[in-house]
Amino acid sequence: MLSNFKIVLVETSHPGNIGGVARAMKNMTLSELCLVTPKTFPSADATSRAAGSDDILSSATVYETLQEAIADCQVVLGASARDRTISWPEVTARECAEKFVKPAENQSRDKIAIVFGRENSGLKNHELDLCHYLLRIPCNSDYSSLNLAAAVQVVAYELFVASGQQTKSTIGDKNEDNLASAKQMELFYEHLQQTLADIGFLHVDKSQSIMRRLRRIYNRVALDTKEVDILRGILRFSQTHNDK
Amino acid sequence: MLSNFKIVLVETSHPGNIGGVARAMKNMTLSELCLVTPKTFPSADATSRAAGSDDILSSATVYETLQEAIADCQVVLGASARDRTISWPEVTARECAEKFVKPAENQSRDKIAIVFGRENSGLKNHELDLCHYLLRIPCNSDYSSLNLAAAVQVVAYELFVASGQQTKSTIGDKNEDNLASAKQMELFYEHLQQTLADIGFLHVDKSQSIMRRLRRIYNRVALDTKEVDILRGILRFSQTHNDK
Repeated sequence: MLSNFKIVLVETSHPGNIGGVARAMKNMTLSELCLVTPKTFPSADATSRAAGSDDILSSATVYETLQEAIADCQVVLGASARDRTISWPEVTARECAEKFVKPAENQSRDKIAIVFGRENSGLKNHELDLCHYLLRIPCNSDYSSLNLAAAVQVVAYELFVASGQQTKSTIGDKNEDNLASAKQMELFYEHLQQTLADIGFLHVDKSQSIMRRLRRIYNRVALDTKEVDILRGILRFSQTHNDK
Repeated sequence: MLSNFKIVLVETSHPGNIGGVARAMKNMTLSELCLVTPKTFPSADATSRAAGSDDILSSATVYETLQEAIADCQVVLGASARDRTISWPEVTARECAEKFVKPAENQSRDKIAIVFGRENSGLKNHELDLCHYLLRIPCNSDYSSLNLAAAVQVVAYELFVASGQQTKSTIGDKNEDNLASAKQMELFYEHLQQTLADIGFLHVDKSQSIMRRLRRIYNRVALDTKEVDILRGILRFSQTHNDK
């Protein structure tokens, strides 16, 4: 029932944590684990900590970049403990579960990635740029860094609990057309950036801050594939027009 | 606020788990750790896994028996994954939190112990006899053994959430900038429509359907005034560029 969720770990340092994550996932019926450039994998430490969930480890996929790991996902959530100056749409672990776990008879086709960063430094801003939501685990503000496997455990637990409650409504869910995948959104952002450069609104190499703002807008709106087509149609017209 | 809760670990084998438990506790503002005949304590493994929560370790109390560890408690809950033939009053982790965590102004004087058993075999029946409730963490029935620190993490997390120490985040909540007014949005839509006509993407008098779609996108995202300024800035550049 949680088969449309994947857990993505970015640059994990300690292989034991990867094993702990696999165990936490299997305890809560999650099965798809993606690893972005883990420091050591596979490893005996991971298998030992996995304690019987090594099927999750052996079917885990290793990626070179976060982009590739989330390419097939329509919704991407990035776990973050830090208060960031740039504000981001934020959900708690429970809100995430209530919003995205659908009852079995109404199983979502959307693929959902929950991304966890490095043990010491979490996710970098350019990685959060790829996320639609920041996922926050409520905790002690004076000591807020959960162990990686513990953080996955809490989130997976919330997803599991929500999967047994079939009465939750999904407020603001539109769900007519398919949501655009992360890959489609990336192509849109590239197209947008190029067009904005063409009309002189920005310089490609100095565009980071403005592109981040635009990403916030379009990630927040959760575009469906048809809407992305329309927006890219506009960009194409703009370029054709400029070429004349 | 959770100062009337204590975590009791019975005959823990792996000192690393004791450290993991300390970290999980501190993350969720629990502070009182009791150890009943731990195999190895103190230990470097525990301190290492505690990662900054070693104050919890150094103030932990070691007992010879479970009876002594819970002697000052009015309520004792025993964590158990197993379905037992002997039926017992049972609460889930969430029910436990909802039942026993009181708001600050109505702080309970009852001292509450949550007891976790051995890594491999949990609590024995004579230990459960000392408990008023069985505490169950909902999980995969085919793979129900959580790591000890992970189990404490889930329970401590539920206690913390119930304590209301952190305000809920609101989905889609973004920042303090003012949302754009309907008037500002209308001016934006006029500007957008004119620009799309200028680049040949639509004819002003046949644009109703496409403009409706675009309105759906930008109304849904709830733009703030700064974001409207950015988008209109892009439109202006597009027009200036076309005028050249």
